[in-house]
Amino acid sequence: MRFDIITVLPGLLESPFGHSILQRAQKKGLVEIVVHNLRDYAENKQKSVDDYPYGGGGGMVMSIQPFASCIEKLKAERDYDEVIFMTPDGITLNQSAANELSIRKNIIILCGHYKGIDQRIRDIYVTREISIGDYVLSGGELPAAILVDAVVRLIPGVLSDETSALSDSFQGDLLDAPIYTRPANWNGHMVPEVLLSGNQSVIENWRYEEALQRTRDRRPDLLDN
Amino acid sequence: MRFDIITVLPGLLESPFGHSILQRAQKKGLVEIVVHNLRDYAENKQKSVDDYPYGGGGGMVMSIQPFASCIEKLKAERDYDEVIFMTPDGITLNQSAANELSIRKNIIILCGHYKGIDQRIRDIYVTREISIGDYVLSGGELPAAILVDAVVRLIPGVLSDETSALSDSFQGDLLDAPIYTRPANWNGHMVPEVLLSGNQSVIENWRYEEALQRTRDRRPDLLDN
Repeated sequence: MRFDIITVLPGLLESPFGHSILQRAQKKGLVEIVVHNLRDYAENKQKSVDDYPYGGGGGMVMSIQPFASCIEKLKAERDYDEVIFMTPDGITLNQSAANELSIRKNIIILCGHYKGIDQRIRDIYVTREISIGDYVLSGGELPAAILVDAVVRLIPGVLSDETSALSDSFQGDLLDAPIYTRPANWNGHMVPEVLLSGNQSVIENWRYEEALQRTRDRRPDLLDN
Repeated sequence: MRFDIITVLPGLLESPFGHSILQRAQKKGLVEIVVHNLRDYAENKQKSVDDYPYGGGGGMVMSIQPFASCIEKLKAERDYDEVIFMTPDGITLNQSAANELSIRKNIIILCGHYKGIDQRIRDIYVTREISIGDYVLSGGELPAAILVDAVVRLIPGVLSDETSALSDSFQGDLLDAPIYTRPANWNGHMVPEVLLSGNQSVIENWRYEEALQRTRDRRPDLLDN
């Protein structure tokens, strides 16, 4: 799987892609993540990537030309399954969208910054608009990192324990049950006795009931699906 | 405003906090972001921060002691308004929660990794559990960066154009209208003529109608609120 991420702030993505699971997945050759500096594609003398909005209003708008040049260059090199634009008015990311994207081969991700991008980039090139949630951020870079993280960890071989991704929250319909590790007694705060019982079927039953209760308390909407 | 972020992967957060708006807000002295390496607080010889889960199952669980030592040290130094744990089973972040947090003074954010953290850390210390969305990630680091970004840009003086944060998506009940910049004609793809009219009241009316239509099409749930 390959991600091409187009951004005006490539440096912002250095450390998220250089640590932990995303780093290991790249080293294992399971995913290739290429970050492109949008400014390198600007054809004007000032290497400018934005301009004032038509019709007035605050903030700068990212211009068509640099995005178009970068996308066209990439598309000439290989086929892409999706050109994704990270935007708060996109479809909200959820686990099933992440699952679906994890079986794609090549994905371009466009990161907006400033006030947003010229609508015609969206009209001409973008196949899917994704929001990571109902809040406004400085740009699409962190959302792109979130999307890549959510998708890459689902690729077989990326997680060391193959069962881990499947037992996460949202892969079933329930939130996770509470988890505990040593010591059994922390200043009087005890681990639930059932977890020390060694009786695996009683433990699994307790976990199911706890997960159900937590889901009822916190996210009853998940039980309606 | 001050954020203390406790993580086992401090390096992962370097570039997000070292660029763009978050970097400038720190330079201006409007926010202080301190990242703590959880491993520095582990009191065992191996500097281990996790252990096997009680009751069996895959994945490692983050232990109480390192988090407790770091939180206690910070709390001895200043008062904190919130100790936030980033977790997919928390309350889903939205713009009004970001607004609310932007008027706080001192906030601790705990980042989980591996399978999660010992439930007793949540019971004893955590005042608020926040999810950035219904998808599973490798750890709480990127969600912490998302939360900090969403909150910091609301602090007065952080954005250069003071009106920008207020006119964003989700600050009203509508998504943004489409935006355009030069050229007016891109390979036959034209800017809507109304935006070239110079008639500001007609333009504002068009923007309102477009925003309303986009919200109806994409996020009718926002109109129900």
